[in-house]
Amino acid sequence: MKEVIAIIQLNKMEATKDALEVIGISSFTAYKASGRGKQKGLQIPHPTPLDERDERDERDEKRMKYIPKRMISVMVEDEFVPAVVAVITKVNRTGNYGDGRIFVSPMEESVRIRTGERGSVAIS
Amino acid sequence: MKEVIAIIQLNKMEATKDALEVIGISSFTAYKASGRGKQKGLQIPHPTPLDERDERDERDEKRMKYIPKRMISVMVEDEFVPAVVAVITKVNRTGNYGDGRIFVSPMEESVRIRTGERGSVAIS
Amino acid sequence: MKEVIAIIQLNKMEATKDALEVIGISSFTAYKASGRGKQKGLQIPHPTPLDERDERDERDEKRMKYIPKRMISVMVEDEFVPAVVAVITKVNRTGNYGDGRIFVSPMEESVRIRTGERGSVAIS
Repeated sequence: MKEVIAIIQLNKMEATKDALEVIGISSFTAYKASGRGKQKGLQIPHPTPLDERDERDERDEKRMKYIPKRMISVMVEDEFVPAVVAVITKVNRTGNYGDGRIFVSPMEESVRIRTGERGSVAIS
Repeated sequence: MKEVIAIIQLNKMEATKDALEVIGISSFTAYKASGRGKQKGLQIPHPTPLDERDERDERDEKRMKYIPKRMISVMVEDEFVPAVVAVITKVNRTGNYGDGRIFVSPMEESVRIRTGERGSVAIS
Repeated sequence: MKEVIAIIQLNKMEATKDALEVIGISSFTAYKASGRGKQKGLQIPHPTPLDERDERDERDEKRMKYIPKRMISVMVEDEFVPAVVAVITKVNRTGNYGDGRIFVSPMEESVRIRTGERGSVAIS
């Protein structure tokens, strides 16, 4: 069993959920996250004209904001990982910085609390 | 060392915390999460009478809300995993959809920042 | 590839980000979290004078609040783990309870959605 973790844009949540459902995956958990990647966060334009800035202003200008993201975590059997990665990639790729990343990590066990079922039946 | 991750109902946080403390586990981290599982989210009753709906309304009706959940993450030595899973299952089982899930994943190292201690002493 | 997870104080986020950037790591994801560790949460002073309290008050007094934390997740090649752990430890150690913890977990794959790149190029 694997956990597929995707860090995606906020506005791609619905499309990602719908695409996962098409390939039979309707269970997942979503989290709010903030990201910093190659786009180095949001660059906020500096309100002070350039010649009035002092050193501290310039240091502040270099500070960037984190970008709000969604993290979704999907638990799947090993053989479904390529399909899940492909679907999430397809739906989320715009070609721009900030499209996000997908990670795959090992998961040893899963238990459905309601029934006590374990393993693959507990993630379907 | 393992990470036991439980996705549970909001109103079970205190009982879960208390039960973990009874078996000697007082350290954990909690996160806000949103879940979608077999219950397929909250079904919101549609405000428009049935015969006035158009296709878009019907599509909207199928869209369901995510259910707010809590995720708790507990780091434990391997031999404690069965006890932690059993306790979380017992406290959170109501028999209804939405009781949640527990996942166990491998964790290779832990460091307590205050002292630099590593391994099992850093999770106690 | 490994995921280095750090549960740190809110007011250490900027310093941690800056220190990671100094060693060449500018990509990470941050999450809001609540922690309970050896400090057993915040002890809120009880508003009722001691002799007016009943049993329920005393039980409430024992309940502690969770402490707001930040969780940051950094994906790095195995050989960078010691540097990342050292830097996060150095920046976050005050010597007081609540300094936080660092965990290292295995990560099998990473994909940059924008380009489809996999592995170490997808985390740089």
